Amino acid sequence: MLSSYLDVPKLLTITVHNETFALFLCVSPVGRENSASFFVVHSHNPPAMEPRQKLCYLLLFTVSLIFLLLNASDRLPSLSSDLASPSRRFIRNQPSASTRHSDHSLDVPKHPLDPLTVQEINRVRTILLSHPTFGSVSTPYALHSIALHEPPKDFVKSWSKGQPFPRKASVVARVGGDSYVLTVDLDKGSTKVENFGHVSGYPTMTIEDMTTATVAPFADARFNLTITERGVNLVDVACLPLSLGWYGKREENRRLIKVQCYSSKDTVNFYMRPIEGLTVLVDMDTKEVIEITDKGRDIPIPKAADTDYRYSHMQANHRTVDLINPISIEQPNGPSFVIEDDHQVKWANWELHIKADARAGVIISRAQFKDPDSGETRDVMYKGYASELFVPYMDPTDAWYFKTYMDAGEYGFGLQAMPLDPLNDCPRNARFMDGVFAAGDGKPYVRSNMICIYESYGGDIGWRHSESPITGMPIREVRPKVTLVVRMAASVANYDYIVDWEFQADGLIRVKVGLSGILMIKGSPYTNLQDKPDDEDLYGTILAENVVGVIHDHFITFYLDMDVDGTENSFVKVNIQKQETSPGESPRKSYLKAVRTIAKNEKDAQVKLKLYEPAEFHVINPNKKTRVGNPVGYKVVAAGTAASLLDLDDPPQKRAAFTNNQMWVTPYNASEQWAAGLFVYQSQGEDTLAVWSERNRPIENKDIVMWYTLGFHHIPCQEDFPVMPTVSSSFDLKPVNFFERNPILGVPPNRDTELPVCKASASA
Amino acid sequence: MLSSYLDVPKLLTITVHNETFALFLCVSPVGRENSASFFVVHSHNPPAMEPRQKLCYLLLFTVSLIFLLLNASDRLPSLSSDLASPSRRFIRNQPSASTRHSDHSLDVPKHPLDPLTVQEINRVRTILLSHPTFGSVSTPYALHSIALHEPPKDFVKSWSKGQPFPRKASVVARVGGDSYVLTVDLDKGSTKVENFGHVSGYPTMTIEDMTTATVAPFADARFNLTITERGVNLVDVACLPLSLGWYGKREENRRLIKVQCYSSKDTVNFYMRPIEGLTVLVDMDTKEVIEITDKGRDIPIPKAADTDYRYSHMQANHRTVDLINPISIEQPNGPSFVIEDDHQVKWANWELHIKADARAGVIISRAQFKDPDSGETRDVMYKGYASELFVPYMDPTDAWYFKTYMDAGEYGFGLQAMPLDPLNDCPRNARFMDGVFAAGDGKPYVRSNMICIYESYGGDIGWRHSESPITGMPIREVRPKVTLVVRMAASVANYDYIVDWEFQADGLIRVKVGLSGILMIKGSPYTNLQDKPDDEDLYGTILAENVVGVIHDHFITFYLDMDVDGTENSFVKVNIQKQETSPGESPRKSYLKAVRTIAKNEKDAQVKLKLYEPAEFHVINPNKKTRVGNPVGYKVVAAGTAASLLDLDDPPQKRAAFTNNQMWVTPYNASEQWAAGLFVYQSQGEDTLAVWSERNRPIENKDIVMWYTLGFHHIPCQEDFPVMPTVSSSFDLKPVNFFERNPILGVPPNRDTELPVCKASASA
Repeated sequence: MLSSYLDVPKLLTITVHNETFALFLCVSPVGRENSASFFVVHSHNPPAMEPRQKLCYLLLFTVSLIFLLLNASDRLPSLSSDLASPSRRFIRNQPSASTRHSDHSLDVPKHPLDPLTVQEINRVRTILLSHPTFGSVSTPYALHSIALHEPPKDFVKSWSKGQPFPRKASVVARVGGDSYVLTVDLDKGSTKVENFGHVSGYPTMTIEDMTTATVAPFADARFNLTITERGVNLVDVACLPLSLGWYGKREENRRLIKVQCYSSKDTVNFYMRPIEGLTVLVDMDTKEVIEITDKGRDIPIPKAADTDYRYSHMQANHRTVDLINPISIEQPNGPSFVIEDDHQVKWANWELHIKADARAGVIISRAQFKDPDSGETRDVMYKGYASELFVPYMDPTDAWYFKTYMDAGEYGFGLQAMPLDPLNDCPRNARFMDGVFAAGDGKPYVRSNMICIYESYGGDIGWRHSESPITGMPIREVRPKVTLVVRMAASVANYDYIVDWEFQADGLIRVKVGLSGILMIKGSPYTNLQDKPDDEDLYGTILAENVVGVIHDHFITFYLDMDVDGTENSFVKVNIQKQETSPGESPRKSYLKAVRTIAKNEKDAQVKLKLYEPAEFHVINPNKKTRVGNPVGYKVVAAGTAASLLDLDDPPQKRAAFTNNQMWVTPYNASEQWAAGLFVYQSQGEDTLAVWSERNRPIENKDIVMWYTLGFHHIPCQEDFPVMPTVSSSFDLKPVNFFERNPILGVPPNRDTELPVCKASASA
Repeated sequence: MLSSYLDVPKLLTITVHNETFALFLCVSPVGRENSASFFVVHSHNPPAMEPRQKLCYLLLFTVSLIFLLLNASDRLPSLSSDLASPSRRFIRNQPSASTRHSDHSLDVPKHPLDPLTVQEINRVRTILLSHPTFGSVSTPYALHSIALHEPPKDFVKSWSKGQPFPRKASVVARVGGDSYVLTVDLDKGSTKVENFGHVSGYPTMTIEDMTTATVAPFADARFNLTITERGVNLVDVACLPLSLGWYGKREENRRLIKVQCYSSKDTVNFYMRPIEGLTVLVDMDTKEVIEITDKGRDIPIPKAADTDYRYSHMQANHRTVDLINPISIEQPNGPSFVIEDDHQVKWANWELHIKADARAGVIISRAQFKDPDSGETRDVMYKGYASELFVPYMDPTDAWYFKTYMDAGEYGFGLQAMPLDPLNDCPRNARFMDGVFAAGDGKPYVRSNMICIYESYGGDIGWRHSESPITGMPIREVRPKVTLVVRMAASVANYDYIVDWEFQADGLIRVKVGLSGILMIKGSPYTNLQDKPDDEDLYGTILAENVVGVIHDHFITFYLDMDVDGTENSFVKVNIQKQETSPGESPRKSYLKAVRTIAKNEKDAQVKLKLYEPAEFHVINPNKKTRVGNPVGYKVVAAGTAASLLDLDDPPQKRAAFTNNQMWVTPYNASEQWAAGLFVYQSQGEDTLAVWSERNRPIENKDIVMWYTLGFHHIPCQEDFPVMPTVSSSFDLKPVNFFERNPILGVPPNRDTELPVCKASASA
């Protein structure tokens, strides 16, 4: 049983499918504040195994151990209190992870856009804590974000290697119950309080907020009682911290969270075993349980059988299948890209700057392309990243209506991006990049292997032409398509998002989002669709006995600061319109015509996609033309997507009004980085992209930012149980008259003499 | 200079960029009929080269030679007259290619769906020519199609290996100016004339129709004169046979074609050098020039510079760049699929039958999936293929309005599918399949390496879940995504279509179409957009001096005979609709609801996609439910696509009315295989999918066929010059409650010990 005021780490064990797990419960008290986190380590007493199984278990155990060693620092709450000033306390205790496993302790920034280093984060913290905002030594605080305050674009673009550059940090802090935005000048050692948080909403939760919330209910006897009465052992309960959106006065002036729980008995996949109808409203600052909604006691907890998806489990149950021979992308001469100065990647004609960010996940900066004709290095995109996500569930009932998550602004898309599996998340030829983040107490920690970078070749064709039997000319020219992929995968509790930035040698950038992981499940009284009364709405699909996958949407809104051959750009809609011919003009009655319209102001650039009113969407440089007079440009090319259909006045849609269109264009504004606003948690929607765009500012021949939202409707199906095959979609940023001609003409075909010589693995 | 009545092969030479080409002109007379074809072999006198260049030239030359040796038989018009009966003559002379290079002469069919073999085609021809339809020995004829007449579905599904099966051929012939559909019973040696061609239109052109048309203009002095007067040497003229659609009475009762020509001087990419405004109307049967439209003499022929895209040319001009290190998909233990009995492919849990088809390109049949839970082999799709293409150009002027091609029904999508480049069209781990087709005289020939089959792994993820810092559980389970690709590439003159059928281990089928190759170019007086008067419409984009890429669409309509767990299926629209909540019901105002509607009749299943009226489209088996009561199904998932916007009454749109919707569902009907009708050439649109669907037949719980049209709008841009980077889109057929659960749970992750050990190539 878990309780709220443990003062030492506890070791608990739970048994799942005859396998015992050690569960480290780490809780330490600082005043009334607590931080807790579970670490489940698969360990003891596997059932009798065959030698092969034993080997695999050993491997699994080793991997688990290495994983823990490498990453525990990402999550382990500090049990010590080694703050800069021992007398200071922060709102909760925070992970004080170090960089001991991936040694970044001596990193120095080498580029003006490089993320804050371990040393810099430490210095930010020291400077901050001496600032008057942090008040007396007894004022509680938490640092919700410490990130580079980027120098102005002009500076960055004119900077060249070796020159000095300024270093500032942008900090979001909660001090004594108030939110602050502070800029710390690392060069001067000074701090500027820029903003006092006049809008609604709270900062992104810290990991400590989340983990603390999950144990808060156990302090309440009513909670423990209902759990026990439902026949669940408290030790089997796993809880999730669910951001609750904003639905009216109730969520104002208090940082609240809802906690819902699951039974982890007999499965690691507790998400499939909801304790339905039980919702605990918790004050994140005080840890108080404010309200327990205790409904749905008649809804059985779904069974654990068939929910475990781990390979070890499938092996133990003889349910593995080796259908596919080993297959690998091989580059015997090594990758073609280089990573210079930790963050600068050069590949084919591309140069870009890549960094991890606690909120956005991955930030691509300064994407430039070396023109193969002119030799000139040309600007394409100054900055691109996932600015916000919106994931509304489609169930208006009590335990579900509030599930309208914004995973970047509420949970931290980068904070949730875990280390990638070196051989499976990315192919063997990948290289990895770590993230350096700050915990809630301001101490830096390393998220190792958070980003991978690799060259992909799956057999696709870059361009081709064979002459046909009509001409009979013996021409067959084909070029393979090799791309550079920059990937991260965020696990926002159950769901996994795979975000790829894929750079093609021909100048195209494909932004791809894959959805996998585990569904958010609703417990149901029904074991078969036939048992459901016709007039009852399940709000989803029965996936297994008593398991309903609730319908939901996913929207990922990307910030795309395009700089096409320079800063001043325009947005052009090229409508593809039917044109009727005049009588007698042509045997044809109609044809399609491209009609170009330059967007003057923001409202001209609010785009809803329509299959029967098609258009191309160009970001052009009106000041630069090709040899034959076309403005140079890039176009945004949508692929499969989905639009939000919720009522515009529905509270979640107001907060996520940035999904009201698929595209928007705004003039660059340093304060407009996050589509749902800087303070998203419990926000009321006054500071979204939709609000900014309504100002209708001029955007012609300006430094403009394009916003594109990629959407998915998800009606779950049984194939999504107990873990979902990846579904993905994408959009492209594609050169359109950016080059004088096809930029990959000079790329050679594959030549057999240059391909690798391979043999089966040594162990085969 | 080319003339019409050459009686021996001629060797001409042309010089392009200081490189000399040998041009074999092969023309042979049979009565007044001629067949001509160009073979340009890159050969003599390259400029002074470095040793590396020399090596590459040598390689290129060798490859060209091998290419010619392997494939000449596909195109070489017969110079002999070895017909079955020497006294018989057919409408034109035909290629009488043999199977000498890929020896299929002893092939025997092993499965009821296997394509006709070399021996069978020979037998069909012998049987046919003795049939009364072919009249007296002096009646001219041409065999436009000889293909397997497939046995009924019932028979095929109940057939098992080793059992006998019937063999029939379906033949489309032109005899004495009339079109016939004949069925030849190979077992009985009998022929049945089933259809006398009561609808408008003519059969797919033979290759001989096309090649003959290209030389017809040279028989006309007016044509030769205008060419010469335009300053073009006749020997440099390359012409294309352009199907002319149907625009009124003029195209009736006569098999017509329009021929337009280009200058091939100084470039192999003559497509970039149109002799604009010159159109020759030719009677395909008599070879007569009916009309010459001679306009646009003031439009310069664009320059040849920068149009050659061949690697040899780029090398010679020092414009190659080796930016990417060798990269390869390696499978040291070999591929995981087997090809049994020449056409049966087994991979992962999939089993399918693959064959080449002269009209459709590739036909996938009997796609079945072995359920990993039940072990049962379950039907998914009985037959799938590209049924028709529609490529309307958006220029209503005289030389362009008629360009509204239907590449399958007019040109033969499979006829135009050339041998794939083993290392570049497909990765090194590919296996190849040949096509066996019949020439116009009914003689079989082999299209070698027309289809490739390979396993693709580009680093994507099949499914994954990491636990997040919120729970801290050390779970990180990731499975790589490996797929099986079945590919062909058709070169319909300038344009290249890459068609992939991609089978995923999780049961999903992705149908992907890539567009590459060379644009159809319009000559223009302008060298810069600025010179164009504002009120003049270019109908496209200036790509280079005097070169306009004309706006056009591409539609590819797929025939998808889904058999989800059996023959009787239903089509269900699952509309995703906004549902407003009642006052007081919920803090939410709205949510999305899935509303299922079963299509009763065909009109219920005519679907136009709308982003703001989303739906899922399921083909279900209403007679089979999962354990928890969901009907088993597959859904059609659209990705990026485009709709035809032409006037419904526009003649090309009437002929291509199958593009009026993105989806249609029809009851299975053996005569409804080709979306534009059986006789597409000059058709008037009386026999299209749209006409069939209007009958509004019942489709609930029937053997139904789904039709999906994938569309592209293409506004050319300079990057498309002189050869286009591939643009692709796709749609998916995805299991939806087809499986009880995720079918790839038991698939292992990559294990380092099993991956190959590679070193750089021996030549490195």
